[in-house]
Amino acid sequence: MCRWLAYSGTPLLLDTILYKPAHSLIDQSLHSRLGVETTNGDGFGIGWYTQEDEVETPAIVRDVGPAWNNRNLREIAEHVRSPLLFAHIRASTGTAVQQTNCHPFRHGRWMWMHNGSIAGFHGMRRELALAVDPTLFLDLEGTTDSEMMFFLALTFGMDEDPPAAVARMAGLVERTGRAHGIDAPLQMTVATTDGKAVWAFRYASAGTARSLFFSTKVEALQKLHPDVPLLQELSDDTRLIVSEPLGDLTGAWNEVPEHSWGMVREGAHELHAFTPV
Amino acid sequence: MCRWLAYSGTPLLLDTILYKPAHSLIDQSLHSRLGVETTNGDGFGIGWYTQEDEVETPAIVRDVGPAWNNRNLREIAEHVRSPLLFAHIRASTGTAVQQTNCHPFRHGRWMWMHNGSIAGFHGMRRELALAVDPTLFLDLEGTTDSEMMFFLALTFGMDEDPPAAVARMAGLVERTGRAHGIDAPLQMTVATTDGKAVWAFRYASAGTARSLFFSTKVEALQKLHPDVPLLQELSDDTRLIVSEPLGDLTGAWNEVPEHSWGMVREGAHELHAFTPV
Amino acid sequence: MCRWLAYSGTPLLLDTILYKPAHSLIDQSLHSRLGVETTNGDGFGIGWYTQEDEVETPAIVRDVGPAWNNRNLREIAEHVRSPLLFAHIRASTGTAVQQTNCHPFRHGRWMWMHNGSIAGFHGMRRELALAVDPTLFLDLEGTTDSEMMFFLALTFGMDEDPPAAVARMAGLVERTGRAHGIDAPLQMTVATTDGKAVWAFRYASAGTARSLFFSTKVEALQKLHPDVPLLQELSDDTRLIVSEPLGDLTGAWNEVPEHSWGMVREGAHELHAFTPV
Amino acid sequence: MCRWLAYSGTPLLLDTILYKPAHSLIDQSLHSRLGVETTNGDGFGIGWYTQEDEVETPAIVRDVGPAWNNRNLREIAEHVRSPLLFAHIRASTGTAVQQTNCHPFRHGRWMWMHNGSIAGFHGMRRELALAVDPTLFLDLEGTTDSEMMFFLALTFGMDEDPPAAVARMAGLVERTGRAHGIDAPLQMTVATTDGKAVWAFRYASAGTARSLFFSTKVEALQKLHPDVPLLQELSDDTRLIVSEPLGDLTGAWNEVPEHSWGMVREGAHELHAFTPV
Repeated sequence: MCRWLAYSGTPLLLDTILYKPAHSLIDQSLHSRLGVETTNGDGFGIGWYTQEDEVETPAIVRDVGPAWNNRNLREIAEHVRSPLLFAHIRASTGTAVQQTNCHPFRHGRWMWMHNGSIAGFHGMRRELALAVDPTLFLDLEGTTDSEMMFFLALTFGMDEDPPAAVARMAGLVERTGRAHGIDAPLQMTVATTDGKAVWAFRYASAGTARSLFFSTKVEALQKLHPDVPLLQELSDDTRLIVSEPLGDLTGAWNEVPEHSWGMVREGAHELHAFTPV
Repeated sequence: MCRWLAYSGTPLLLDTILYKPAHSLIDQSLHSRLGVETTNGDGFGIGWYTQEDEVETPAIVRDVGPAWNNRNLREIAEHVRSPLLFAHIRASTGTAVQQTNCHPFRHGRWMWMHNGSIAGFHGMRRELALAVDPTLFLDLEGTTDSEMMFFLALTFGMDEDPPAAVARMAGLVERTGRAHGIDAPLQMTVATTDGKAVWAFRYASAGTARSLFFSTKVEALQKLHPDVPLLQELSDDTRLIVSEPLGDLTGAWNEVPEHSWGMVREGAHELHAFTPV
Repeated sequence: MCRWLAYSGTPLLLDTILYKPAHSLIDQSLHSRLGVETTNGDGFGIGWYTQEDEVETPAIVRDVGPAWNNRNLREIAEHVRSPLLFAHIRASTGTAVQQTNCHPFRHGRWMWMHNGSIAGFHGMRRELALAVDPTLFLDLEGTTDSEMMFFLALTFGMDEDPPAAVARMAGLVERTGRAHGIDAPLQMTVATTDGKAVWAFRYASAGTARSLFFSTKVEALQKLHPDVPLLQELSDDTRLIVSEPLGDLTGAWNEVPEHSWGMVREGAHELHAFTPV
Repeated sequence: MCRWLAYSGTPLLLDTILYKPAHSLIDQSLHSRLGVETTNGDGFGIGWYTQEDEVETPAIVRDVGPAWNNRNLREIAEHVRSPLLFAHIRASTGTAVQQTNCHPFRHGRWMWMHNGSIAGFHGMRRELALAVDPTLFLDLEGTTDSEMMFFLALTFGMDEDPPAAVARMAGLVERTGRAHGIDAPLQMTVATTDGKAVWAFRYASAGTARSLFFSTKVEALQKLHPDVPLLQELSDDTRLIVSEPLGDLTGAWNEVPEHSWGMVREGAHELHAFTPV
């Protein structure tokens, strides 16, 4: 399993989001509290959008070692500012530990990261790969279920309607899995973005889905904690979506309901039920 | 492009084969003379069979950095002895520099390594992948044309008749390539082994194939060079097949004819014409 | 902190020692039970002596990633046999995660590995470095306290009397530390070998030393567990010394007393009190 | 030997400086024209100052593989903008290929990178290390002559007068080398910066120093090449100092005279003779 974090809002040094919180994602790479594994040391990745007008695609930096001892990650975090950051730490469930299997994945303006798994993926990899648009297929670089889910969602219309595309992907995975005799094929918490909005999904075919939390509206937090300077600098639209809370600030974290998806962007946020189709 | 070496015969410390020759494979990683690129620094790999009775599969050690500065490679070479070694240095033609794209590839008792390329591979990757046996497909780990060629040959009967399986693979690649409008789809020098015999292939759909050489029969070399101690220790069946000669020893190296395949094993060697089918 | 294992006795495939035990060292890299940290993911190393007559120095293979996901380590373990193996997994206490900081360290025929630390090492690094024999100094490659301890012991006569050399090293470290105002400068469990005998040390300037265990004499274990086939194959001299037991076999493990050192080699074993001088 | 590049002036995406020139530093990593080796594949590093007010130290990103196939380097280059960039590609002359041996080196606000070598450095490493200020000594992380030269210059007063500090370092190296019987101890082209000014040095104890070039004043280049859009965007103070020219633009490159040092910063530039003291 893995852990991830999506940040959207007031441009911050990545450091502020990645390293400074008490139970930061970097700390979770060694000491996850809510994950299936306490250690997430099989690679990591970050992706961020710059504020440079001429650059539309996000930067993706990924490496195969643990996040907790990576000096380059810390250097970048201490020197780069962004309004939209994805970060992911990986605990491999068997697929190779290599850069092309590290999240986030990117396609054009889109990024995607995932915690969870497709049960029995190895056995249905070929069948799912065949469902990927043949042109997109050529850009598949790794061997994870997570990247396959991304490319299926891209096939099913991410550009037009991300929640619908993810629902169709989830539906296909469940039908394929059940045809292979698997009762509960899908466990997923996914975040995806086009650089403007962030969509997050929490779903499991059966049982409890992996943990997922979103941060309270900044305005409310500012009232609760007038003494926390960082909070006072954040815009109202600033949001964090995380696999597990980054600290113990009272009132800061809300569980994403199971079987639901949410969207945050400047001036808007939504929360809906999620059903594979 | 890449460079490779296959050794079969008297068990030697790998060092003797890999590092000691004047123009060793490790030297070729920095200064190839006959390759398309002079530098082969995008990963390397070695595979060897032990003389342990209970171990049937070869050991495969691969890494993503250059061979020339890899300390672990040198340590292994100086301490491990084998009667059958494959070694490969990679110059990527665009696919990711990752362990699963490094040669040699292994499946069960089989190893495979390659220098060359399928022209337009990116565009026909999906089509070729569909031709791989669905069970074998699940074990594809990387994204190179070389691994795909291996899995196609496995699909086409490596266990029964390796030259026939490789001929069918080459035929499929050529037909697929030509259907995509590519005149000369295949450039290949391949070595494969089941731990007993080594088969090598040199072929190009058009023009000159990549360079390939085999060593002269040891008996003849011993007569030519009675003053070279190493030669005196080698069994009559010992052979090297290499992308380029490892030194300038007179009479030691013979070019593999274009469009041909050869086989060497204890007590036997063959050389035949190669035609894709 | 770190974990380590020293094996001496009947030549075995490294796999048997490294991966097969229930709570193997590889398992300890993710789930140490007795260590200060549960995760030891900041690099690893193995060193082994071959049975090749012409090779006197041990092979050292070290890498900066975690042991648990390293494919090359598993390949080597499944294909190499040795009568004397050192293995180490690292949890950095701040020094760089790089190959030259991974254990075991080697000098000529000697290997050395360590779990523990010199308190305040950063501040006394220069002073200790000056005490290293100037000729040896040139071969210092890394920045760890562990390598420095090794080079100090080499300076103080490892070739003649290893326990005396280590006692002098420990004495110097303690005097230097106390001169810097540090009450308890040294925490160490060390293993060292010249390829014939293995010496192990357990010591702390104050408080409890890091855990260290040695395996029961094989003859006794065979009687206790006539149903464990592996035990029946081992010579009487076979011994394991480990940071923590590799499993729950009744009667298999004995704690090394605090402030003591032991030696095992073919036909002999000793256990003595250890006092820095 | 190595190759390096120092950029100072109009803030640019690093990509523009690192990848886009015809004979870019990345191209030089595979195909250096003027270097002692054509391949510089033993690690690389970049260091840049941000335009963030609250961040004073430069970011340093270094890795042990070749620059030419490093995806993270390209990602950073395409998304980060800076007014002051150092970049270095390494060809090891024997010291370990590890992050702490990659340039640029950093201390506080200072960066340092080097092409060249101290002849016989291994034998005088201890002596030079003893001359480093004891407090600074503790921050030495690697084993290169280049980092030692940096720390000696820091010891000799970089903060007050960089050219004088470098002259004292060079003097010490030459005296120490000659005491060891070495006629021509020093070969160096060095760049160093405090984030405001860049100083570059070209010197050899004997014979020709490594190649070094600086770019022509922008105003002159704009007149020569009114058709090159990038040139029109650059401020008058913009300068590149490089081991070898990045392309064939007429009039763009001037050789730094042997035995000299230069300085560039906003509104000023100087060129002087360099003499070790």
